[in-house]
Parts: sequence; structure tokens; C-alpha cells
Amino acid sequence: MRFRDKQIEMAHGAGGKASRKLVEGLFVPLLAGAVPQSLSDSAHVQINGAPMAITTDSFVVNPIQFPGGSIGDLAVNGTMNDLAVSGAIGRALVATFVLEEGLPTSVLEAEIRAMADAARRAGVSIVGGDTKVVEHGKADKMYISTTGVGELIHGVRVDAASVRPGDKVILSGPIGNHGITILLARGDLDFEADLRSDTRCVLPLVQALAKEAAPGIRWMRDPTRGGVATSLNELARDCGLGIIISEEQIPMDDGVRGACELLGLDPLHIANEGQFLAIIAPEYADSAMNALTMTNGGEGATVIGEVREHPASAVLVTTGYGGTRIIDMLVGDPLPRIC
Amino acid sequence: MRFRDKQIEMAHGAGGKASRKLVEGLFVPLLAGAVPQSLSDSAHVQINGAPMAITTDSFVVNPIQFPGGSIGDLAVNGTMNDLAVSGAIGRALVATFVLEEGLPTSVLEAEIRAMADAARRAGVSIVGGDTKVVEHGKADKMYISTTGVGELIHGVRVDAASVRPGDKVILSGPIGNHGITILLARGDLDFEADLRSDTRCVLPLVQALAKEAAPGIRWMRDPTRGGVATSLNELARDCGLGIIISEEQIPMDDGVRGACELLGLDPLHIANEGQFLAIIAPEYADSAMNALTMTNGGEGATVIGEVREHPASAVLVTTGYGGTRIIDMLVGDPLPRIC
Repeated sequence: MRFRDKQIEMAHGAGGKASRKLVEGLFVPLLAGAVPQSLSDSAHVQINGAPMAITTDSFVVNPIQFPGGSIGDLAVNGTMNDLAVSGAIGRALVATFVLEEGLPTSVLEAEIRAMADAARRAGVSIVGGDTKVVEHGKADKMYISTTGVGELIHGVRVDAASVRPGDKVILSGPIGNHGITILLARGDLDFEADLRSDTRCVLPLVQALAKEAAPGIRWMRDPTRGGVATSLNELARDCGLGIIISEEQIPMDDGVRGACELLGLDPLHIANEGQFLAIIAPEYADSAMNALTMTNGGEGATVIGEVREHPASAVLVTTGYGGTRIIDMLVGDPLPRIC
Repeated sequence: MRFRDKQIEMAHGAGGKASRKLVEGLFVPLLAGAVPQSLSDSAHVQINGAPMAITTDSFVVNPIQFPGGSIGDLAVNGTMNDLAVSGAIGRALVATFVLEEGLPTSVLEAEIRAMADAARRAGVSIVGGDTKVVEHGKADKMYISTTGVGELIHGVRVDAASVRPGDKVILSGPIGNHGITILLARGDLDFEADLRSDTRCVLPLVQALAKEAAPGIRWMRDPTRGGVATSLNELARDCGLGIIISEEQIPMDDGVRGACELLGLDPLHIANEGQFLAIIAPEYADSAMNALTMTNGGEGATVIGEVREHPASAVLVTTGYGGTRIIDMLVGDPLPRIC
């Protein structure tokens, strides 16, 4: 699948189908053999024979501050979460800043503080960084990139190829809060709702899950850009199986539901920054749910569906009226610069 | 030393005095205890008890392509070099891309190829990445951040505190080619010279040095932004000693010398992307020089000076006429967006 688009569009950064085409059609073939085929959220490598996980992300969210968080929170939590859902505990972070000339120091200071606080909460150290400055207008206040390295959680193996029909799909909590909060924070819409980003580190939840149900964990992913639908479609494609989820089971706050209805958005395509999906072997489903719902911040965890033989490589949603619909990855970019 | 500037200026990204004030006055105090005091090019951490090095850098060079290289080369070589001069062999890289909407795919493809080629030459794997897209005008084509993790080179310890009076200052080759090349590539100057960036991975040179003189290596640094003068001033400050270098000994190509004279720039403040400085114990100076000059690409290595008790924490240049001058870190930013 060669990348044939003539130029880069916003959709290529949206985390949906266009992003995947860019990565699989251009980055992977050119970095030949260098990039793991699985394109998972983090890579596992060996340094001096010791296994470790590494992941990296850029953050270009606009606006940089929003109800419930800011770019500094995202930059720490997002990277810790990518490690967590790959089965790793982030131990050290490094960060780079591309700052816009003229940025008030107070704004930068607030974000460094946000990063320090988020790192403390997540139990990780920020061990190094780099700062560049670009001319006024060449960045929106700041872009941050973070990279995390971590230790693998004993007994946890995350691999789409291990997913089997009958496995349960667990979602850690309500969806859509981050994406809709950012959308409203831009102030372009004549619409208000009392929403907050769900940005947080999900490592404590993953650790609780691992403690009670490690052998039952098949796969995990944090459904950020592109939302739950995109993450599950990637899984369906990678494992070749079907994933059936029940619309009625999907936890969602009223404000998100209302905003999505008004704006014509599918909440399954909306970004989250503090949730994760787990595919759990059926015999571990109860202990997994117990572990999550007994853990602070996991009270909203829900079994939202299961894996089946069919439809192969696709995601099906059953609706409240007994109907079903196929839901695809995010196509295009309804919400640019969400993280 | 609290950071008191009210807003971020280009100079804060130039790698000189203003950058250091920003890092030491804002980042380090706020990330309290999280950032190593030494502020070296890479941090050494332990993952599951295994020691490793990690470093990160953003690249915002403008233009992205220039004689001798491009942003993709810099992004790989720069990170490998930061690891090398901290005494580590880069084993895995991750990269993030902030792409400008409308970027021709051909331009992106050329940079991914440049990264792949540079990684192959440096013997490192690119194991993961992330891509974001920002609106047209919000980034100049692309910004790239890379993070590298590596294994420590046996027997090499890089530490400013180990530097002693009498140690020799070795420079791997001619200075200023990168910075002046970028300046000319912008086309703002009515001036031409046949120069090329020196972007390359210095790891083979560092390995050759380590093989013959590991116990004699006190400190290394790649003098990128801010040039040789800034790197040596940082060392002088960190070790409290004086560093005397001889202007006549500093290797420099005629084109760089001519451009600097015409433009009123001090070549000691100009950025390099393929050179490094090493402080070597005197009894290892000969074997260090042999190791470097016998290695491909190290033919230009030169002893440019030595460490003395005085002047404390300062860098002194002896000129061809028998005079001396104190040279400070880079102040301001004569050459923005150099890497």
C-alpha cells in the first residue's frame, strides 16, 4: 500500500485512516525493517540484553490550556499511557519544546509546572530535555514532544495476534470528554457544556488489572486520536477477527452525548486521554472487571463487547433498537489538533 | 538564578547564555530533582537495574535542506552524537514529526529517506514514531524530534568534575561549517562560498578514542548551537577551572574563516554538527591523537589547548600575535534555527 497523496493534509495527523496510510505507506517502507510491523504504541527493545519499552509522541493541542488540563499534562500522561497499554511502567521521560518567539514566560512556566505535577502523580522522573525557539507565528505557543522508557510489567504480554473469539472488550470509563472539551475550548461553536478533559495516567488501572488478571490480558490500547472506533478497527485488522460492541454499554457522560448529537459527531471517533481498552480472555473477565472497578478511577469500567470470528477484520456496533452497523476508523479530521 | 525574562525570544533557543538561563532558571527548579544537575547532553538512567543512556532533541533547522545534509540527517546524527559524547552507543531511536499542512509528500519522503540512510550509517534502528499535522504556516515544512537510547561504552566516564589542570583539549576537526552553510543556504546574504554542513555521526571517532584512551577521557561534548566557545565555557563553569585554547591551532576551512571575517562572526560561536571536543588526561593525549587521526574522518583532530588552574571558570584564547582574550558563551542569537 504505497502512499499516493501528493501532499500532507490535516487528516494525516488525525490518527484515523489517513494517518495509518501515511505511516504504513511511507514511514514503514522507507525505514525498512527498522520500524516494528505491529505499529503499536510503544516498541520493546533490548539495551545491553535488558528488555525495555520506549514510546514517543508530539503534542500540538490547540488551545494549550483547556478545562481539566493542558498540553503539559497531556505530554506526560499521553506518554505514560502509551507505555502502560504496551505493558510497561514508565521510569524516565525526556521532553523537547518548540517555543514560539514572544511566548510569555508565565505561560511556559505553567506548562513546566503541569508537567512536573503530572510526572509526580505518575511516579516518573523527567531526566532531560531540549528547547528550540521559532519565530512568532511559526508555532502556536508551543509544541512538546515526550519520550518515555519503561520496565515491562511481569507476566503481561500485549499482542493482537493472541486475541481469540470469545474474548471480552473492556473499556475503562466514559468516552469523548477530551475531544469534546477541546472542541468547545476553541470557542468556535455557539455551544457550551460543563465538560473536562479526562487527561490522566492510566498506569494504576493497568497495574491493578495486571495484578489480578495478567495472564488474561491479550491486548490494550488507549483510544486517543480517532477514538475507540479507530483503536478497535486497528485491532480487528491486526488480528483478522470481528469485534462486536454494544452502543448501550458504552459509558458516556451526558454532556458528551448531547454535544455529539448536536454536532453530528460519532462519540466512538472522539479522542480520549485517560481511558484504555483491554481485550481480556473470557475466564479472566470477572477478575479484570473487579480489579478495575475496585481501583480509584476505574469505577466506570465496563464490558462493552466481545471478539467473534465474524465479521472478519471489522467492528460492528449493536444499537439500542436491535440493529447493527459497521463502524470504520476515523476518516478525515473533524477535530484537528486534539492532542 | 531565577529566570526573569518576561517572554521567550529567539536567543533562548540559540544554545548560548540565554538558553542556559532558561534551563537553569526555569526548567531545572520547576522539575525539581527530576533533571540531573549536570545538564549534560544525555542522561544515564537504570531500567530494571540495567544502565542506559537517553537523550532527546528537537530540530527546527531552516531551510530543511542545505549543502551536505538536511533536517533528517541532523535528527539522526545529532541524537547519536549526544549519546556518543556522553559515552554511549545509540541502539534505538524514536522520532516525532510535526508536519505543515500542504507539505509536498516528496519533501517528506526525502527526509524519511535521509533519516533511514543516516540511521543505517550510524548502525542504529528507528523503532517507532509519531506524526502530527498543523495548519499551513504553523511550522516551516516540518519539525522533527528524536530520542535515542544507548548502551554505555565500557570504561568511559564523562564528568566535568574529573577534569584536572594539565588535561589536553582535543577538537575532532574543522569548525563552523554547519552554521555558516545554513546561514548561506538562507540566501539572505550577498555572499557565496563552497561550504557543506559537517553533519555526521561521530560515534566511530568516539569509539576509536575509547579503544585507545578510555581511562584518559575526562569529558566530551559536541559543540553544536553556541559553538566551541559555549561548550568550553559550560565546561569551565562546571569544573571551576580555566581553559586556554590557541586560536592558531583551531582547525578551520578557508571558506568558514572568510565568511566569519566578512560577517563579523566569531567562528568559535558557530554551530557544528559533526565535531566533538574531548578533554584528555595528559598521559593519554598522544594515544588519543593517534586513535583519532588514524580513524576515517578524524584526520583533522588537533590539540587546541589545555586546562589550567586560572582563570577560574573561564575560557581564554591566545591569538597569533601573542595576545589573549577571554571568550564568553554565545550571547544573543546571530544565527537562529541552525539545527
